[in-house]
Amino acid sequence: MTKPAVRRRVTIVENGRARRGEDRLTGEEPLEIRVNGRSLAVTMRTPGHDVELALGFLVSEGVITRRDQVHTARYCAGATDEGVNTYNVLDVHVAHDAHLDHLALERHGVTSSSCGVCGKTSIDAVTTRSAFEVDSDPLRIEARLLTTMPDRLRSAQRVFDQTGGLHAAGLFDGRTGQPLVVREDVGRHNAVDKVVGWALEHEKLPLSGCVLMVSGRAGFELAQKASMAGVPMLAAVSAPSSLAVDLAESAGLTVVGFLRGESMVVYSRPDRVEVVQ
Amino acid sequence: MTKPAVRRRVTIVENGRARRGEDRLTGEEPLEIRVNGRSLAVTMRTPGHDVELALGFLVSEGVITRRDQVHTARYCAGATDEGVNTYNVLDVHVAHDAHLDHLALERHGVTSSSCGVCGKTSIDAVTTRSAFEVDSDPLRIEARLLTTMPDRLRSAQRVFDQTGGLHAAGLFDGRTGQPLVVREDVGRHNAVDKVVGWALEHEKLPLSGCVLMVSGRAGFELAQKASMAGVPMLAAVSAPSSLAVDLAESAGLTVVGFLRGESMVVYSRPDRVEVVQ
Repeated sequence: MTKPAVRRRVTIVENGRARRGEDRLTGEEPLEIRVNGRSLAVTMRTPGHDVELALGFLVSEGVITRRDQVHTARYCAGATDEGVNTYNVLDVHVAHDAHLDHLALERHGVTSSSCGVCGKTSIDAVTTRSAFEVDSDPLRIEARLLTTMPDRLRSAQRVFDQTGGLHAAGLFDGRTGQPLVVREDVGRHNAVDKVVGWALEHEKLPLSGCVLMVSGRAGFELAQKASMAGVPMLAAVSAPSSLAVDLAESAGLTVVGFLRGESMVVYSRPDRVEVVQ
Repeated sequence: MTKPAVRRRVTIVENGRARRGEDRLTGEEPLEIRVNGRSLAVTMRTPGHDVELALGFLVSEGVITRRDQVHTARYCAGATDEGVNTYNVLDVHVAHDAHLDHLALERHGVTSSSCGVCGKTSIDAVTTRSAFEVDSDPLRIEARLLTTMPDRLRSAQRVFDQTGGLHAAGLFDGRTGQPLVVREDVGRHNAVDKVVGWALEHEKLPLSGCVLMVSGRAGFELAQKASMAGVPMLAAVSAPSSLAVDLAESAGLTVVGFLRGESMVVYSRPDRVEVVQ
């Protein structure tokens, strides 16, 4: 297993000169997530918090919503021909339910090739599937408190300090603005899954009254993950996409973008952001 | 079909005041890529250059390497229950070969559940699979010319100017430093696939003597795509990952990161970057 940060010999070009030096790179390796012995997905991730990642992924996919549905989660021993544990295959055993069979078929593409089935939009699929309702979440937060979150997220990023190459996701208490957990990964969606997996392990789902904050942009996938975890507000340093906002509007999720300095743009459910003048 | 940029009513918080305004969002919709009638993948992408995206994806997956292998590429008419063309399902017909069957099985997860198979690393898979060899590519480029590319990439980003929320990939001529093509997308890997698809359509594969430049970070997936398209140099504004550099070293690909202002870090095959003092 690679570490979260890896040292490498590099050539640095600066001021018109080249010199040899050393740099730290963000670790990246494939993680295969198996559920009840069946391969469900392979994700390129930064090693670390792999169980959280797998559990958060299963929450995002609608397989589990409670910790007691998870029986075991362990690395698959003997994952290579030589029987070496690569720590890159994680097998999760969960309470069996019908949705899992459906999901496995869906992800594995064994769908009818007739157009009628596949034209269904992903947005329809997710809004009917989430076990948690965020539309009525009573969260109200002062804009001023939101503006403190980017710095708090950044200062909790340990691996970024070494490599400069990682996304982060953080879960913040909507009353105090304090971070509950911050996770890093080469993939923003993985960082969010790790946060959601942490919340499942700590029996905090649905994440009512919380703000999920991410570095960079917020696409559809992140809005979907927020909705599946029952968090009423998704905040991003950069721009959301059109489909992220479509989903947010239909789910009653607040999306805040361009959260920088003292300013921000609220794309959906602005009633949750209070401006005290 | 959504446009590359979409207008929305938003709430803007600035200087302690909230006001209603308008913002342009990056368009994002699912694209299902079918090959010879079979669903191969669904990707969340910014609409536009969809055929390039599908063809580039198929180059990245090792299905095609030449334009004459593509018979047709068209949107699937009647992709919803109501028979409406969503422009979100693209069917590509290609010359049939055995690899396609293998790939479809592989992607759809119908693999043995025995550990021996799945523990194989992705890096092994890609380095044996690329049809093009970049290790012996004679590209040499002055560091000074490389430093001009980020601004050239940025100034070619039309949708970014409107939305602030898009990744870009550009293909540059290694002799002149001029951009051959620049594409934008919510997903960096999609932007790269669009560039590679453009190159396939213009019969420019393998991309010998070229530099592939991306906004943001360069993970394993991008190094893999560069290798599959036969481009000898991948340059990024931000950091590469450890696995991207591992792949680059084994394939003979030059990876340049943190290409900003007058400086850069060369992570592999630094012999291709010349510093004239």
